[in-house]
Amino acid sequence: MKNPLSSDFVIGFLGAGQLARMSALQAFRFGMQIAVFSDRPEDEPVQFMTPHSYSGSFGDVSLMVEFANKCDVITLENEFIDSEILSKLETVSGTPIYPSPKSFSLIENKLIEKQTFERAGIPVTPYKLIQHDEDLSEFGNMYGWPYLLKSSKGGYDGYGNKTVSSADEALEAFRNLGGKSGHDIIAEAFVDFTHELAVQVARNETGHVVYPCCETVQKNHICVAVKTPAPVSEPVQKRAQELALKATEAIDGKGIFAFEFFLTKEGEVLLNESAPRPHNSGHYSIEGCVTSQFENHVRAVCGLPLGNPSLIQPAAVMINLLGTHNRNAVIEHAEDAAAAGHLHSYGKLQSKTGRKMAHFTLLGEDLENVYSWAMELTKQIEI
Amino acid sequence: MKNPLSSDFVIGFLGAGQLARMSALQAFRFGMQIAVFSDRPEDEPVQFMTPHSYSGSFGDVSLMVEFANKCDVITLENEFIDSEILSKLETVSGTPIYPSPKSFSLIENKLIEKQTFERAGIPVTPYKLIQHDEDLSEFGNMYGWPYLLKSSKGGYDGYGNKTVSSADEALEAFRNLGGKSGHDIIAEAFVDFTHELAVQVARNETGHVVYPCCETVQKNHICVAVKTPAPVSEPVQKRAQELALKATEAIDGKGIFAFEFFLTKEGEVLLNESAPRPHNSGHYSIEGCVTSQFENHVRAVCGLPLGNPSLIQPAAVMINLLGTHNRNAVIEHAEDAAAAGHLHSYGKLQSKTGRKMAHFTLLGEDLENVYSWAMELTKQIEI
Repeated sequence: MKNPLSSDFVIGFLGAGQLARMSALQAFRFGMQIAVFSDRPEDEPVQFMTPHSYSGSFGDVSLMVEFANKCDVITLENEFIDSEILSKLETVSGTPIYPSPKSFSLIENKLIEKQTFERAGIPVTPYKLIQHDEDLSEFGNMYGWPYLLKSSKGGYDGYGNKTVSSADEALEAFRNLGGKSGHDIIAEAFVDFTHELAVQVARNETGHVVYPCCETVQKNHICVAVKTPAPVSEPVQKRAQELALKATEAIDGKGIFAFEFFLTKEGEVLLNESAPRPHNSGHYSIEGCVTSQFENHVRAVCGLPLGNPSLIQPAAVMINLLGTHNRNAVIEHAEDAAAAGHLHSYGKLQSKTGRKMAHFTLLGEDLENVYSWAMELTKQIEI
Repeated sequence: MKNPLSSDFVIGFLGAGQLARMSALQAFRFGMQIAVFSDRPEDEPVQFMTPHSYSGSFGDVSLMVEFANKCDVITLENEFIDSEILSKLETVSGTPIYPSPKSFSLIENKLIEKQTFERAGIPVTPYKLIQHDEDLSEFGNMYGWPYLLKSSKGGYDGYGNKTVSSADEALEAFRNLGGKSGHDIIAEAFVDFTHELAVQVARNETGHVVYPCCETVQKNHICVAVKTPAPVSEPVQKRAQELALKATEAIDGKGIFAFEFFLTKEGEVLLNESAPRPHNSGHYSIEGCVTSQFENHVRAVCGLPLGNPSLIQPAAVMINLLGTHNRNAVIEHAEDAAAAGHLHSYGKLQSKTGRKMAHFTLLGEDLENVYSWAMELTKQIEI
């Protein structure tokens, strides 16, 4: 690959949302140019950041080749493009894609993902591929009700998931998720956890760095806040960090990866989800760490040496600012938050209730004090 | 003005170089869109960051109006556009310009600038408007040889300035700088200084913040490194900060401003230069301070509350990386610098010897150790 610190070096993003936007900001810092390919009909955040903007279907390799030919390297902000399509795009255009299509092939399907990580010795939540209707009640009877039904492909932030409390509910949800005719559907036991944890890992041929272990605070399967470091014991933090690194190695990851874990009541750390991209749980790192997840993502995929992921203050809290209205996007009553901390808006033109529109990070000495203050500062905000 | 946290809010930059580029990165963080108007024939750094790109002469209001109509607010990255042109552009387009044309009118001419600051009680370096050839030798005889001849308009990084050691040299330089037929030319005494200092101030209707006092290390009138905090006594640092705030108030500044001072052997702090824009001496603030000069610039001109300018570590050193070759821009042998600290490249396509191409910031506990380390890390770098 060309020296990424050439000013005509172009990094391409498949996907034009906030994760690509925040990565693009780091690419600009290194003097790079950016290009974007979006599959959305409306203007998306990254499209306002470059004259090199393409759009079309993520299934149409011929359309994506023109974009790929513009780029020296390509990366992604989601895991929804089939790895076979990525592989074909890489072959036809000759432009490298990181994380590699091979890495994507190991995690794009939740069933294969779990098998990959199990083989690497990483404890995952109890699960079963649903092949027959009877499997639905058998799983509930073995691991307890309620449990979770998940489509093996395409799930995100609560979509493609369903909590089921009885055999009847399970059968209905199974059919709504596509049943036997759609993607594989797996049953996953509800883990009796005390904390949901997450860890980011950046890795490439120059080495790897592991971010602090954070806690993700969830409401209705959507992350509303992230506390770093997670308020759990040091051995638990270290265990999550070890497993995250092991998982990154298991898929030979090049780029930034995020892993979400359950800490069970028994103190066990179980891998729940993986993301081959910058992740909401790592947004705190923009101001909270010496080198952010976005900067290390750009460094990793471009072959630059990785930067220090250490916290710069003892505590960092990130609050997701979700849409509170359906309207043209505007953030109101954010003056106090903007004055005290670090406000990021993603440049989405339309606000929708519950849509991720912005976030806010606050740093300080004591985690719970910072958390209370951050909650206080943001509760007036309307978007 | 529209709420700047609306995602269709557009901040416009007159000038497309690295100062606008680093400001634009902060505007993106707030979800804004950016537009740019460049007066250069070649592609400039900010033009790679937006689909809203305009170009033409900074003297042609009609060309700039189309750009201005796209913007909700306009700011500048240099002080070379005549304040009368700015005033006309603001009136015709109805788009506010900050810093205001009025502020620019008080500092665009070095003579008026010195008079403005003197009236505000700010000590400036001894100077005299050259009206007759005889003034040249009289000034030298009174304040000592050599002294500096400066064009009252258009000087930058050593251009438009000339050090003169004799009456003959002074006369020649006076004529080369335009003599009586060009802009006013002032003679300025060489100050016997121990340190060159700089301070940034951000100010708007919500208040003001004053950055730490830093030392600029210069070679041939070009800043090669910046040390923060300046290795001078606390009273001297405070004095420079007080004078910087007073100077900002004297021109009713809205935006970010930088002031450069001489610390004389006698311990006096004299104002040397002012810049109504982000300044090279403040680049360290991107990672060195809670809120960078670029972020506070965007906040100030958009009417957002200003952020905390405090240092996040005891010492910050910024090294300017100047072009070492005439070639297509590429940074080589920067791996160690990139791994240890914060490397910024400006995205200029062509490297030229001595051209500001990039910079590098390193933070730490002890200023002189950090400085030595930063120099060590960067000495191999070629651009």
